[in-house]
Amino acid sequence: MSKVLIFGHLNPDTDAITSAISFAYLQKQLGVDAEAVSLGEISEETAFALDYFNVPAPRIVETVANETKQVMLVDHNEFQQSVADIREVEVLAVVDHHRIANFETANPLYYRAEPVGCTNTIILKLYKEHGIEIPKEIAGLMASAIVSDSLLFKSPTCTEEDVKAAKELAIMSEIDLAVYGLDLLKAGTNLADKTPEQLLNMDAKSFPMGPKNVRVAQVNTVAIEDVFNKQAAIEATMLKEMVENNFDLFILVVTNILDSDSVILALGNPITAVEEAFNVTLTDNKALLKGVVSRKKQVVPQLTEALS
Amino acid sequence: MSKVLIFGHLNPDTDAITSAISFAYLQKQLGVDAEAVSLGEISEETAFALDYFNVPAPRIVETVANETKQVMLVDHNEFQQSVADIREVEVLAVVDHHRIANFETANPLYYRAEPVGCTNTIILKLYKEHGIEIPKEIAGLMASAIVSDSLLFKSPTCTEEDVKAAKELAIMSEIDLAVYGLDLLKAGTNLADKTPEQLLNMDAKSFPMGPKNVRVAQVNTVAIEDVFNKQAAIEATMLKEMVENNFDLFILVVTNILDSDSVILALGNPITAVEEAFNVTLTDNKALLKGVVSRKKQVVPQLTEALS
Repeated sequence: MSKVLIFGHLNPDTDAITSAISFAYLQKQLGVDAEAVSLGEISEETAFALDYFNVPAPRIVETVANETKQVMLVDHNEFQQSVADIREVEVLAVVDHHRIANFETANPLYYRAEPVGCTNTIILKLYKEHGIEIPKEIAGLMASAIVSDSLLFKSPTCTEEDVKAAKELAIMSEIDLAVYGLDLLKAGTNLADKTPEQLLNMDAKSFPMGPKNVRVAQVNTVAIEDVFNKQAAIEATMLKEMVENNFDLFILVVTNILDSDSVILALGNPITAVEEAFNVTLTDNKALLKGVVSRKKQVVPQLTEALS
Repeated sequence: MSKVLIFGHLNPDTDAITSAISFAYLQKQLGVDAEAVSLGEISEETAFALDYFNVPAPRIVETVANETKQVMLVDHNEFQQSVADIREVEVLAVVDHHRIANFETANPLYYRAEPVGCTNTIILKLYKEHGIEIPKEIAGLMASAIVSDSLLFKSPTCTEEDVKAAKELAIMSEIDLAVYGLDLLKAGTNLADKTPEQLLNMDAKSFPMGPKNVRVAQVNTVAIEDVFNKQAAIEATMLKEMVENNFDLFILVVTNILDSDSVILALGNPITAVEEAFNVTLTDNKALLKGVVSRKKQVVPQLTEALS
């Protein structure tokens, strides 16, 4: 059997990268010839975590069918968020915490999804179910993912299980969650020297919503003005990407991780669906969304509803 | 919150009915106001199991949105195998052992699929994970489902986990698997007094395969001639259902549970895909498939491949 490749979504965030690493390690202990790979460059936040725990970044792949017949997906299932040639390989397993859509298989598979805040919270359960011990550095990466996905437990996606898992993993990896967690989040907020292309692709996903193809990018910051100083250039790049990729709507969510609020920048059609979804009026294409930090719970369902 | 309805697929078999019962009991112990319901009449095999363990049959529903907003699916996920108004309710959870296709949600959910032979094998794990004790009669129904889905462990879908689970459940429910199991299977093979409509709907599922809509019905018997004595009438009914429901191909799989072989009866277009899928020549629309007993592993993937 060829090697089984394990990967998270395109534009990988910390959970996408570390869940590939943690799930691949588990699979190897279970006898699978598994390798964690990445569908894109790692973020500065993820680099901070990998450096801290001295784990090398997974190699980047653009396609998989050229080297394997079988893959496992973590932190995603929708094919448009996956590797370009996903339909040419067999998906053996999925571990995820998102909605299920645009996903199908020819054969029965292992699929484990739970409505928790982070894929690594589920992977911790899988380690326990199989009685496999977690190495200190893997536990540290798993804790990092929970901090990242939950914005240090402030996101509405965060469940009690995530908090409990993070505390347990922090003990295993000998970190102080509050101190390490804030350092980790801040490492991902250095936006001042990013180009508009980089900003818009740090953590961006596409979603079919009704008849529309919607792009939702998100960046975290401690200073929202660092982003909007470049608003004109960002808008020009958004329009370019919309034309090139047939996005009907493009929404950039700029989240202040200290205040737990977001400002959105939205372009496209129907723009009224954006105003309706969040009950706001866009001014200069922007609106403040008080208390909004989660794309999954506070942005995507509302947009889906408004566009359906 | 309104009651959460839990159900298996249309044309329910023993696993569809009993996994709804066993998963609903588990959910009730976890505090969910759950009720197992059925999407159709129970089979004689299922009736045998329910009578034996003195458990009432779930009530039959045709729609669910009229009485609840939230459901859980067992033993299926494909919407065309589910309740007619499935898109009008929220799917909170799925426990299944089939491929995933034609399934999507707006929100994250609990999804537990494993490539094992029976849904109840997975549900047994869930009871253990939650530390919930299984009542004797529920254990008996769960063992019945494993016997039914695996044809007493002869089906290629049967895994070591299924065998182990069935033995454990047999002890809990104080049955002799070999004796009870054969009685159970034979209870489902009384085909002599069935009308063609009844025969074709005892255990039938529809599958989108490439551009085609394929109906695959299966019956178990100890005497294949009991079915083919009525071949002309069965073919007439197949053609009628094909016209009424836009099935491109209709395949009836008649399985001898003692020999572990099947004879198929196939009508429709492209009929050559059926011959190609199983590497046989149809004579009088029929062909013997040696060693074939599993629709899921030995019929559907081969047809899907031939039609893609």
